[in-house]
Parts: sequence; C-alpha cells; structure tokens
Amino acid sequence: MATLCRPAIAVPEHVITMQQTLELARETHHGHPQRDLVLRLIRNTGVQTRHLVQPIEETLKHPGFELRNQVYEAEAKTRVPEVVRQALANAGTDPADIDLIVYVSCTGFMMPSLTAWLINTMGFRPETRQLPIAQLGCAAGGAAINRAHDFCRAYPDSNVLIVSCEFCSLCYQPTDIGVGSLLSNGLFGDAISAAVVRGQGGTGMKLERNGSHLVPDTEDWISYAVRDTGFHFLLDKRVPGTMEMLAPVLKDLVDLHGWSVPAMDFFIVHAGGPRILDDLCHFLDLPMEMFRYSRATLTERGNIASSVVFDALARLFDDGGAAESAQGLIAGFGPGITAEVAVGSWAHHAPGSDPDRELADLELDAGVALSG
Amino acid sequence: MATLCRPAIAVPEHVITMQQTLELARETHHGHPQRDLVLRLIRNTGVQTRHLVQPIEETLKHPGFELRNQVYEAEAKTRVPEVVRQALANAGTDPADIDLIVYVSCTGFMMPSLTAWLINTMGFRPETRQLPIAQLGCAAGGAAINRAHDFCRAYPDSNVLIVSCEFCSLCYQPTDIGVGSLLSNGLFGDAISAAVVRGQGGTGMKLERNGSHLVPDTEDWISYAVRDTGFHFLLDKRVPGTMEMLAPVLKDLVDLHGWSVPAMDFFIVHAGGPRILDDLCHFLDLPMEMFRYSRATLTERGNIASSVVFDALARLFDDGGAAESAQGLIAGFGPGITAEVAVGSWAHHAPGSDPDRELADLELDAGVALSG
Repeated sequence: MATLCRPAIAVPEHVITMQQTLELARETHHGHPQRDLVLRLIRNTGVQTRHLVQPIEETLKHPGFELRNQVYEAEAKTRVPEVVRQALANAGTDPADIDLIVYVSCTGFMMPSLTAWLINTMGFRPETRQLPIAQLGCAAGGAAINRAHDFCRAYPDSNVLIVSCEFCSLCYQPTDIGVGSLLSNGLFGDAISAAVVRGQGGTGMKLERNGSHLVPDTEDWISYAVRDTGFHFLLDKRVPGTMEMLAPVLKDLVDLHGWSVPAMDFFIVHAGGPRILDDLCHFLDLPMEMFRYSRATLTERGNIASSVVFDALARLFDDGGAAESAQGLIAGFGPGITAEVAVGSWAHHAPGSDPDRELADLELDAGVALSG
Repeated sequence: MATLCRPAIAVPEHVITMQQTLELARETHHGHPQRDLVLRLIRNTGVQTRHLVQPIEETLKHPGFELRNQVYEAEAKTRVPEVVRQALANAGTDPADIDLIVYVSCTGFMMPSLTAWLINTMGFRPETRQLPIAQLGCAAGGAAINRAHDFCRAYPDSNVLIVSCEFCSLCYQPTDIGVGSLLSNGLFGDAISAAVVRGQGGTGMKLERNGSHLVPDTEDWISYAVRDTGFHFLLDKRVPGTMEMLAPVLKDLVDLHGWSVPAMDFFIVHAGGPRILDDLCHFLDLPMEMFRYSRATLTERGNIASSVVFDALARLFDDGGAAESAQGLIAGFGPGITAEVAVGSWAHHAPGSDPDRELADLELDAGVALSG
C-alpha cells in the first residue's frame, strides 16, 4: 500500500509582504480604471508574505523568455537538490531506492526535464523512470500524488519521488494589466517541494483511492497564452466560483470509498485563493478549522501552484501528524479546470519493523522491481 | 494483461521529397562552409518523403513563437480527433471506455493540454485522467506505452488512450545553421498517431515488462534551447553513436524477461536516423530485415518524433500482425538520453469472446474502475 511520506519544502530568501505588494500595485497602476478593485482583491487574498527567487526589482523586469528560462534552470539546479535530499531522508530512503521521479512544474520549460539532471547528479539509478509534467498547472501536485499511487499499485515494492518546483514569479508579465493578471501578481509565490511515496512502510497518508475530474467546458478559465515573451497566465473571473462544481466531486469520491465527509479527519487542498477554502467549507459543510493547513500556506506563502498541497501536508506533519487510521483527503485544482483527488488514511510505520531493512531487501531484487 | 492495440496514423497533405529538401538546402545555405557535408548527411538519412502541416513556403517563415503555437493548436484540433476515433475503433472501444489519456507532444505547448479539449469535445467522461507529457521528446512514444502499461497493471480493467501529436516542422528555426540543425531540417516530419492500450481483450502486443534507461551525462546531447523565438532543437554529433550504449540495455531487459534477443520475432524502435537502425542490427546481431517497419517509417515519413513507434507498429499490423505469442520489443529513444523499452508477446483476441460485451460489463462498474 502506497504511503505519502513527509514532504520537504523550501522557499527562497527574497520576501515580499502584502503591504509592499499593495504599494507596488498602487504606484505601478496609478491611473488604472480598476486599480481600487485590484487593491481590494489583493487585500482579500489574505496573502501576507510571499517568497521569490529574485529580489522584487529583478522580478519586475522582463529580460525575455530565454533569460527567464535560464534563471529558472539555474535556480532549480541550485535549490532543488537539498529539498530532494530532505524528502528522501524524511521517508528513510536513498536515491537508489527510487524507481520513478515525477517532476511537476509549470513555470519553466526544459527538455530534457530536470529529472535527467537529478538522476545524473544525485545518485539515482539510470533505470529510474522519468515522468515530467508541465501542463497541469496547480492541479499537478494532486496529479503527481495520484500517478505515484497508481505506480505503487502496479509495482507494490517500488518507491516514487515527487518533486514540485514552482517559480511563479518568473511568469510575471508587466504588460498584462487585466484585473485577473493584476490579482495574480499579488497572489502567486515561489516554492520547491518534494515527497516520497513508499510502496512499503513509511509514516504518512496511506493512499487508498484517487480520481480526476474535468469541469466541462472550462478550458479557457485558467490557461497560458504562449507568446514570444513567455507564458502569460490568464485567469477568468469565474474561477473563484468553481468549488460549487467541485465540492460534489470530492464528496462523491469519499462516498465511493465508503466514507463520509463530515466524519473525516483532515483535508489538504490546493489553496488557489481564499474563496476556494471558504466555498469548500460552505459546500461540504465543514468548519473553517478543517482547512487550516492550506490556509496557512496561502497566508504565509501565497499560491505556490503545485507545491501548495505539499506545503500544507508538511504543516500537518509539523503539527504531529494525524492519529493512526485518521481519514483524509488531498485535492489539487488547476487548469482544465481539473481536480485531482486522493483519499486515504494515516499510517504510522509500526514500531519494531525496520523500513531500512525492507529497502535493503528490495535492492537485492532491484532489477525485477525496476523492470516490472 | 494490457494489450497495445492497432495504432491509427495520419500525416498532413503537404509533402516534401528528399530531392526538394536537398535543393532547398543547397540554395538556402549557398556559401555555408559545411554545405556539402550537410547535403551528404541529409542524403544518408534515406528519408525520401516527409509530410508537413503547412506548405513548405509557410514552414520556412518564422512568424514568431506565439503564431507558431497558434498554428500548433489549430492544426492539432483539426487533425487529432479523426485519428483518435480511428484508434478507438481499432481497439473496439468508445470514448466512454477510456480511463486515462496520455498525450505526448514536444512540438507545441498548451496549458491546459489538448487532453481537456478532447474530453470536452469527443465524449470522454469528465473523470478521465489526463497525463500530458511535453518533455520526453522522441522517447515519449515509448514512455506513453510504458505508463499506459503501468496504469493497466494498477487497474486491470481500465483502458488507456495514447495520443501523439508531433508537428516538428513548427520548430524549424531559420537562424540555426549549425550542422546538427541543418541535418535536423532534412530529417524531421509531422504526424499524428493514437493507440489504445486495453486492460482486457484486444489484439496486438500484450505488454509484459517495461524499463527505462538514462545514459549517464548525456543531457545536452539532445535538447531544446528555449528562446524568444521558441524551441531550438540542439543535436550533438555524438547522438548517432548512442546505440552502442543502449543496445545492451535492450538486451538486458529481454534477458531479465527470460527471453533471448536472437529468438525474438519483432522489433519496433524509434528510427531517429539511419545509424540507429544500422547500429542496432550490428550490436544486437540481428538482420536488417528485423527493423523493416521502423526503416519504412523513416524512409517515407522521416523522424516523426514520438509517433515513430506507432507508425512502425501500424505497419506490422498492416502486414497481418505477428503470430500468436510472437515475442517483440518496442523502444523509444530521446532526450536525456533516455530509452523507454517494452517487451511483450502478440495476442489475438480469442474468437468467441466478445470484447464489446466485456466493456459493457466494465461500464456498469465504471465508478470503481475509474476511481481505483
């Protein structure tokens, strides 16, 4: 049974506060007919601080798609390895134990993907499967968990490393001045996260069932326009209302699993904005407290795209984790509009058993585990 | 057991012959110090015809990354659905039978991926999982087959649709005049392909084992430089020699499966260029005839990236397929440098059994099949 272990998270050292964001927006968009609406929307996000890979002065320049992507690659290579090492250690795994790397990132583009560089430089086996996903946006955190779960169902002795690297600030586009773009400028932050899904052993969320859902005919609600200046994030004003459509999807998956939403113990969801959390409380009839980890991520780090679910889950771990067999749900939401949902229960690796020993056994059998 | 059914293929209506390619290269690069070498290399590819989504005059213009990507999206939406319909029909499946769509394409970028549009417009269920892969290049054909195989191992009653859409001509870059780029201009072609992997039933290659291999420290041998003008394909001159390193990888996977390369019946490999096929014959000690389907794809369509393996497999089907239980191998090669290899045996769906009936049964159970 696949267990999603404790995620590792890193945020860059350059911090911007809501106050600074508001001041910048006030100055930069002086004379914009909807400036006051934008300021109000940014204030309503509740995002108090965000972390950026570059100082704000550099972030606001646009040196071109090529240079931005070079910054993406350099910063990813500088910052990802330590997060990966931490995630591996959290799970009691070594690079050689990993059979698949799922790398999700929608804020830079490399071919080959960073997976190849990670394998070459961090001691992963050449046989490690690579699954880079660039086109699921914020839903990719949930998708990565679900594809890792599927892989461990297929190969029960395998281990999957998930890496999410999101430098949203590198997609800042100074010429986009629609309300949706200006709001996004005050909402998104940068972060790197990683987590291991262990096929055997491990403490964390035992993944039991997953599902995906595309809200019909909403393809253009969240999208990228691909231009010579790079990816331009387009956010439709109907997006914040999406939970009315997706809350029943979450409930259906829980019901199908024989569980009941009100009886569940934890919810880790993509906090794209405050309304997502408010509406989930409303439509699922849950207390606000149930989304406290996702709320904390949003408040302290902003919308960090596919990394939100890992950051929120890390907060649950920091809080001592959940009780044995506690029932939980993880959901990523993103372009499509797509929801990627997982349900499972908390598992503490039984004392007395030895996960390192189990992994050593697996290594002996690595050829078979690998090649399925 | 997952079965890779008969692929559907389409190539665009605009054809360019080797003769035309050579004339164009001769004129355009008049005065280039290595022109004669380039002409010789192009002649040596053996690529007689290629198909392009636009007339050659349009292909040679570079209207910018944005417009190119708009052409990509429009042409994909025009051309992909018919290929998908044919692939579904080949496998005796309907859109509603599909649980996962794997969409591979490295020659255009959309977010959301075309998967969302396909689900919205072609009758796939909103619960269909989406797996868009943009960063595995030519290896993505093999990767798609292998991830579909994994998914059917995890959910044995499920069906996976693979779609490969490669408009390589939209990555033509007139300012790239290195030998590798000029050779690529004479090598790559456009194509769309699709195939269904059925969890139960179906005639085709029963997928039994898969493996991936990254050749250490070759990340920059095949890569994209991402620039304001789009993706610039970079091909190192060491790439054609890669099979010396990868042939043993293929052999090892076959050995691990308890089979022997010389005793195998069919080989469907990515024909990136002629040397790949020549060297595989040499290093695996196989007759040239064993790679006739991949050679025919290369000759008639050029290197059509992740679609090569599907086009070559379709030729095996056109030839009457293989004998029951015939042993075969499929391999995609691409950036990383990565090989994605599958071994399996030919299966004719037993007469008397009724795949439509089986699928109808599955539909009753769709919620479970879907949500794992």
